[in-house]
Amino acid sequence: MVNEVDTPGWIVGFTDGEGGFSVSFNFKESLNVGVETKPSFAVGQKSSSLASLEKMRNFFGCGHIRYSRGDGTYKFEVRNLDDLVNKIIPFYEKHPLETLKKDDLTLFAEICRSMKQGFHLNEEGILKILEKAYSMNPSGHRKRSLIEFINAVKQKYSQKNK
Amino acid sequence: MVNEVDTPGWIVGFTDGEGGFSVSFNFKESLNVGVETKPSFAVGQKSSSLASLEKMRNFFGCGHIRYSRGDGTYKFEVRNLDDLVNKIIPFYEKHPLETLKKDDLTLFAEICRSMKQGFHLNEEGILKILEKAYSMNPSGHRKRSLIEFINAVKQKYSQKNK
Repeated sequence: MVNEVDTPGWIVGFTDGEGGFSVSFNFKESLNVGVETKPSFAVGQKSSSLASLEKMRNFFGCGHIRYSRGDGTYKFEVRNLDDLVNKIIPFYEKHPLETLKKDDLTLFAEICRSMKQGFHLNEEGILKILEKAYSMNPSGHRKRSLIEFINAVKQKYSQKNK
Repeated sequence: MVNEVDTPGWIVGFTDGEGGFSVSFNFKESLNVGVETKPSFAVGQKSSSLASLEKMRNFFGCGHIRYSRGDGTYKFEVRNLDDLVNKIIPFYEKHPLETLKKDDLTLFAEICRSMKQGFHLNEEGILKILEKAYSMNPSGHRKRSLIEFINAVKQKYSQKNK
């Protein structure tokens, strides 16, 4: 007899296995703070079947499945801040992860909620967000160091005060 | 409110994420067929917490958690053939995986069950097992090619017939 497993259980286990929360940053001159904050929730590694990612997308009712040419794999990804705050984060708060990713979720939730309040667009807020994001478990290689972004923010604000 | 998710669901999702079935081989002169068959079920990657692996061990009531110095991570591993055939395989047959690993489970189950009947210890049986194992999704790098093992078996049997 084949039993369909409980979907939230599977979602949590699959996320523990190959999901991750991350916050990346870009230099962006047009922004007040000079640095853009980009939170993302993504699931996908080499053995993910499209069906398994579609199961996630259907479950959450948000996000996109995209093909990553870099490593020839599919990824399910949610970048929209409202979807992160209203759909993704509450689910993982209700159904806690079992791996170290649980700690990432805590920081990720703090960052996303502070973004909803616009804190990523002022000096003090973005500096706190940068520090929190860089204390998360690294998912992949970061092109730029924390200090580079801190300097970019500080420079932007010192220009303003001239 | 925090809800503990359903355990089988989590186990299946976590296995879809970072588990795998594999069958490796060694040259072993003392065996009739010259080649030893070693099936293994393992779960563990860099973000696995010990707690998540203990959850798996407790759930299945078999296997070991071992520290892998190579990559500095913990793994939950089941190598005992009876445990694989009686505990691991039936669970994943009852609660199917959602990723490509589902196909591996099918081949893995065929191999383990044929080992229970001793087929890995005769020429025809080990050759079938080798072919099946090498058609599974590669989990890590194989040191030796299929043809090397096939040649080792054939050589062993041609010696016997002299």
